Amino acid sequence: MTKAISYAAHDPKSPLSPFTFERREVGANDVQIEILYCGVCHSDLHQARDEWGNSTFPMVPGHEIVGRVTQVGSHVKKFKAGDLAGVGCLVDSCGTCPDCAEGLEQFCNQSVFTYNSPDKQSPGQSTYGGYSNLIVVDERFTLKISDKLNLAATAPLLCAGITTYSPLRHWNVGPGQKVGIVGLGGLGHMGVKFAKAFGAHTVLFTTSPSKVEDAKRLGADEVVISKDAAQMQQHALSFDFILNTVAAPHDLDQFMGLLKRDGSMCLVGVPDSPHPSPSVANLIFKRRKLAGSLIGGIKETQEMLDFCAEHNITSDIELIPIQEINTAFERILKSDVKYRFVIDIASLKQAA
Amino acid sequence: MTKAISYAAHDPKSPLSPFTFERREVGANDVQIEILYCGVCHSDLHQARDEWGNSTFPMVPGHEIVGRVTQVGSHVKKFKAGDLAGVGCLVDSCGTCPDCAEGLEQFCNQSVFTYNSPDKQSPGQSTYGGYSNLIVVDERFTLKISDKLNLAATAPLLCAGITTYSPLRHWNVGPGQKVGIVGLGGLGHMGVKFAKAFGAHTVLFTTSPSKVEDAKRLGADEVVISKDAAQMQQHALSFDFILNTVAAPHDLDQFMGLLKRDGSMCLVGVPDSPHPSPSVANLIFKRRKLAGSLIGGIKETQEMLDFCAEHNITSDIELIPIQEINTAFERILKSDVKYRFVIDIASLKQAA
Repeated sequence: MTKAISYAAHDPKSPLSPFTFERREVGANDVQIEILYCGVCHSDLHQARDEWGNSTFPMVPGHEIVGRVTQVGSHVKKFKAGDLAGVGCLVDSCGTCPDCAEGLEQFCNQSVFTYNSPDKQSPGQSTYGGYSNLIVVDERFTLKISDKLNLAATAPLLCAGITTYSPLRHWNVGPGQKVGIVGLGGLGHMGVKFAKAFGAHTVLFTTSPSKVEDAKRLGADEVVISKDAAQMQQHALSFDFILNTVAAPHDLDQFMGLLKRDGSMCLVGVPDSPHPSPSVANLIFKRRKLAGSLIGGIKETQEMLDFCAEHNITSDIELIPIQEINTAFERILKSDVKYRFVIDIASLKQAA
Repeated sequence: MTKAISYAAHDPKSPLSPFTFERREVGANDVQIEILYCGVCHSDLHQARDEWGNSTFPMVPGHEIVGRVTQVGSHVKKFKAGDLAGVGCLVDSCGTCPDCAEGLEQFCNQSVFTYNSPDKQSPGQSTYGGYSNLIVVDERFTLKISDKLNLAATAPLLCAGITTYSPLRHWNVGPGQKVGIVGLGGLGHMGVKFAKAFGAHTVLFTTSPSKVEDAKRLGADEVVISKDAAQMQQHALSFDFILNTVAAPHDLDQFMGLLKRDGSMCLVGVPDSPHPSPSVANLIFKRRKLAGSLIGGIKETQEMLDFCAEHNITSDIELIPIQEINTAFERILKSDVKYRFVIDIASLKQAA
């Protein structure tokens, strides 16, 4: 067992504060990673505050983890001490079901999430995430991280990156297509970068005129203010695919109506209360599809990380010391971040 | 011009009653058909009563038309006098847009519906449908009808048939799949027949225990009472595809939860008021799709008719004289029909 230092939520209402716990011994198939950076996902905040009703405390959030391997188990083949490594939303799954067999561990009904999930390896305890200085993870769930990219800006790829990359790949987004990204936050800004990198004509939808220039800088070919009905109307029936990253309840029909016949809109955010019920006529009269997508499997996450290294894609981040995490949570609630907070885990030592 | 006799709605509130009008001269590309049978679709009732807010009067409903060719234009190649022929929901389209080029005329924005649609050939007039003794239709929109099948029972294939056949084909339903059909009405009973004929393990969902035996007779391998939560739970995560024929507002999530990962549910009925908003988590956590489908194009309608002739598939019908159409409408509202009313157009002569 190795002592780990972290910041944890101790209950749904209090600010996160320092917490010390034990990481398991490095097993034969395990990789121990000194965490260097961890991204801050909106779901960290939801779960720390028990907004999904499934939280266990103390909770160490964080599933956008990058760091350096410090030790590996005797059966580990892909990693050695000194390698860069990453951990995303998942740390385990059954390994044998059809989902796992297809490399889609995110859909396995025995998958273990990186934090706030019953820990098979430490029965009775929950998994603890990346707001900590070290983690021990099965090699199967450890990702290779390139040294070509800015390491801190790579961390958000492990959730925000794969969550947008996976649906864009699943729906075969590419050259000759017109693709929409709804919302310019942590997910949306990655969606813009990927859709553009895949060769699609990329259109960003935002309610904020202030985001137009930044969206273009990030790669959007066009930016549409979704509150402007006239602008929206100009794009009716023109999109092959729309990736909707907005979790707040909103009118889905305004975007469904922009899809061509046989077009799909994919949602990646679960709203706290339902969206207004989408129009069935909008689906039927153009054979459209409304879909959802959940992060991505380990194989595809590695593929995404390799793609990013090759195409020099990272997240736009604001690096913060962990002592600012509670302020960061408040700023996330106001969408006041461009576009992802990343914790410099070196700051944890000051708190220990 | 040829005088036609019919039953028409003269306003949204009055019963349908006899109406005489002129059919256009047979043009070079036209086929004139003596109508023998016409199916009664729920949408006939909706439009006769102006429930969709787009009705013009007088209105001659009917888009499940079969009959015998009496005359053809000089350019007509596929039909000659004496042939059996059918007409479905469409009588014209632009012929040049991408939808038309792919044989998906139902999505063409210049498509002309068989009734209650502005008639390009008779400007200022609406199209008149199949509750009449003859119709003149462009050869492109005239279907070949086999003499192997019961002719009256063939009529509903032109709408109820293609509306269910098309999505089952589009989503590649076939052997090795578990497929659900929701609702056992005019559409649902055709959905059961087609899903079974395509080789899928076919499950019918109904709220009515009284329909169980009949559903099995029609080809369902299993019947699930959708109000029975325990029965439903047994089928969780097991369906490849669900065709939902129920237009009345209902909980879509109870069916979405039965789909496997990557499964789709397709809606073919537009509710008068919205369904409860479907769960986004249900979409995301299994990458499911909610979709819609609209009748089918002419090419696919012919393919469906040929498939039915080959596999001896027709609709289960109740044959009525046209004088009973108003009673039939009332019975449709009570779902009191097994499973489609078809008008014996010979009865029109008694009214003339």
